[in-house]
Amino acid sequence: MPDSLARRVTMSEIAEAAGVSVPTVSKVIHRRSDVASATRERVERILIERGYRTPGSPLALRKRHSGLSGLVNIVVHQLDSSYVLEIIRGVQQALFEAHMQLVLTVPNDRDGVAPEWLINNSVDGTILVLVDQNTQILQELQRYNHPFVVVDRLGELGPDTPSVGATNWAGGRAATHYLLTLGHRRIGAICGPANLPCTVDRLAGYRTALEEGNIAFDPSLVYYGNFSATSGYELVQQLLALPELPTAIFAGNDELAAGAYHALHEHGVAVAQQMSVIGFDDTLLAPRLTPPLTTVRQPLFEMGRVATTMLLRLISGEPLDSIRVELPTTLVKRSSCTPLA
Amino acid sequence: MPDSLARRVTMSEIAEAAGVSVPTVSKVIHRRSDVASATRERVERILIERGYRTPGSPLALRKRHSGLSGLVNIVVHQLDSSYVLEIIRGVQQALFEAHMQLVLTVPNDRDGVAPEWLINNSVDGTILVLVDQNTQILQELQRYNHPFVVVDRLGELGPDTPSVGATNWAGGRAATHYLLTLGHRRIGAICGPANLPCTVDRLAGYRTALEEGNIAFDPSLVYYGNFSATSGYELVQQLLALPELPTAIFAGNDELAAGAYHALHEHGVAVAQQMSVIGFDDTLLAPRLTPPLTTVRQPLFEMGRVATTMLLRLISGEPLDSIRVELPTTLVKRSSCTPLA
Repeated sequence: MPDSLARRVTMSEIAEAAGVSVPTVSKVIHRRSDVASATRERVERILIERGYRTPGSPLALRKRHSGLSGLVNIVVHQLDSSYVLEIIRGVQQALFEAHMQLVLTVPNDRDGVAPEWLINNSVDGTILVLVDQNTQILQELQRYNHPFVVVDRLGELGPDTPSVGATNWAGGRAATHYLLTLGHRRIGAICGPANLPCTVDRLAGYRTALEEGNIAFDPSLVYYGNFSATSGYELVQQLLALPELPTAIFAGNDELAAGAYHALHEHGVAVAQQMSVIGFDDTLLAPRLTPPLTTVRQPLFEMGRVATTMLLRLISGEPLDSIRVELPTTLVKRSSCTPLA
Repeated sequence: MPDSLARRVTMSEIAEAAGVSVPTVSKVIHRRSDVASATRERVERILIERGYRTPGSPLALRKRHSGLSGLVNIVVHQLDSSYVLEIIRGVQQALFEAHMQLVLTVPNDRDGVAPEWLINNSVDGTILVLVDQNTQILQELQRYNHPFVVVDRLGELGPDTPSVGATNWAGGRAATHYLLTLGHRRIGAICGPANLPCTVDRLAGYRTALEEGNIAFDPSLVYYGNFSATSGYELVQQLLALPELPTAIFAGNDELAAGAYHALHEHGVAVAQQMSVIGFDDTLLAPRLTPPLTTVRQPLFEMGRVATTMLLRLISGEPLDSIRVELPTTLVKRSSCTPLA
């Protein structure tokens, strides 16, 4: 592979070598379809042989002059859900457009950042998914002035930590409000861990909607677990043991909702007809459940994109418009909620 | 970030600077827990400041002397399913253990490989998910003698193309055999695209099991679509329009099975009790469906791992034990199949 950093190859050199015009070279570079495939192939081969580098974005230009690597790291602690997949997809897309590339890092444990992780890595910046302020990795990055942005914090972040999230409170309120408009008055809540900001915010939204509907908050209807289907299954078992059953369930995420489906099915309670269920996130799972899950969409793809845009600004030394960005959640109506008979 | 390629920093230098013993430095590097946290922090800081590089694997050693980048590329054409996630997870894990890092590339279209993709990328090798021999990207890699391994081919591969797959024929046979042992005789098959090797192989397994059970193959029970839930929904609509219904459905993957659940639910046919459904892949989706899906497990994580091991051998210039590796599929029994009443 040629070392193209040595000297910049121009489009006219490529054009001459390929026996085509400069506009044709440009078309090939920009992947326009109006080039004969034989020509396209020849030009591409010469581009590769001569080590042509696309000027592309201003960042790509800076890159050539500043010794940037063109690599951005995303650190995720688990590759076990379509939740993470959506964020990665957004980051990847934004980097692709900026002519940069994504390095995927999955540390072995949540707090342990290996020194070699920072040393061996010549990435220009890092996106961290689900961390809190006390995470060692965050402290390491701060200490070395390494540009980074947090997506969907797991705990509190300091005022100087760039981060992207979603409007969890508004989402919890919208979900509960929707169930109220369907006539439900007794709404169970199965939540993630009680200490997480997203759980606190979503449940606060649930309480606000209840208050707005003049329904007294009943703590016996609220259960905490973790964001897994297993947890959803267990929490709904508890809900179903109550002397007076709820008629609807607000699940803290889609995985919890999937577990709720299992428990309801086991007890012969039909989702939708006999128990409305609403989720949170709108991951790939939601439309694939039967009945398809009504849920609050967290714009994970867009969160990944926006975090990347912020990171690229930080890498370029440009100021951010805002240190903290929250993207709107939206209600996605499918078939798991029905009016109370 | 220090340029640590210039000179190798030794553990004893680190030990001296940190005022600790060499074994303590070694413990910190190997992330042992029996080091006081203050000591650990100090040693880590010095490791980073001095640009210490972990010798690690023989490959990491080679890396330092051979100009390898320590980066491996994975090329996936869609980041839209937990199928891909599992493979990525396996690749990432194997690279982590080899002290290397994963670059994730998602080309915009299936055939178009951007010239800058090859040029800007200083990766040591590439793992390609779901490609066929005619893919331009494969041809480019071959032309430049760039080491690569294919995971789960989408089409035929030449005899010289290193690849990892699963035993699709055996999986199709096991799924169908299991349904036969439950007493089912009329088994519908909803498949992916008819031209894909995995579809051909899985369906051949289905036919073999039928023959072994002395059941005549009935082409009117076989439907082709693509590997999506939408397709599964549509194909089962057709199956349900048959004058004589099947009692079980063999789905070509878990997504098709999820779509089958939708169609059956819509027609008031209870999965398991009234229609057994078996899937293929065992992605994250399978256990989350209600009832949890019985399926044929394709060892996607392991396929990613093995492909990476093969690639690292190629990068190191070592010979492969086998150009083509097929890992075994296994039947995972959950709740979606029941004996025929």
